[in-house]
Amino acid sequence: MGETPTALGVALAYHAAWTGKDMDRAMTYIADDIVCDAPAGRIEGAAAYRAFLEPFSGTLTGATMIAAYGDEQRALVMYDTASPRVASAPGAECVTVADGRITYSRFLFDRLPFAR
Amino acid sequence: MGETPTALGVALAYHAAWTGKDMDRAMTYIADDIVCDAPAGRIEGAAAYRAFLEPFSGTLTGATMIAAYGDEQRALVMYDTASPRVASAPGAECVTVADGRITYSRFLFDRLPFAR
Repeated sequence: MGETPTALGVALAYHAAWTGKDMDRAMTYIADDIVCDAPAGRIEGAAAYRAFLEPFSGTLTGATMIAAYGDEQRALVMYDTASPRVASAPGAECVTVADGRITYSRFLFDRLPFAR
Repeated sequence: MGETPTALGVALAYHAAWTGKDMDRAMTYIADDIVCDAPAGRIEGAAAYRAFLEPFSGTLTGATMIAAYGDEQRALVMYDTASPRVASAPGAECVTVADGRITYSRFLFDRLPFAR
């Protein structure tokens, strides 16, 4: 067994993957039984999580990390994203990590620009 | 001159004040020339910032800090709020602090439940 990465390390690697449109790699950081509390409600399981994130990931034209902090178990990141639908759509995620994978995510973004 | 508080210390004191409906105290942590990038656009100056936050602060029935991190200059917090209009309205703020006051804030929440 290699070194266990910190929660922040996992959050940053996951972020780089999904904003880089590499969802296969992003999912290597997501636990099979992930629970994600997102603006529209709870998402349970890796398949549902991928179905939630992949369509948005595919449309990205840019992403910038605003701030990222964490400790051994949890990380908190805020970033901005750009896509054809919404030029600036910031997000924030507070993730809990175990064994190198995200087991819980509180996922926050403003749905209003996407609802218009 | 006393010790300069960390950005995280300021962010936590400010959070406790505004979620405790003590906007006078909350404003002691806000720079006169604060710039805040909020979902609806940029807010400039302490008076405009207070006008943005005070109506929501007054309706709160609860608030819980989810995670808070920071260093000397910046802090990143995520919290949940409850109010009669929206039972769970999480927010995230990335604040830059100078001389004990927030000079810049990236303020994120989901406007959709409030727009309905």
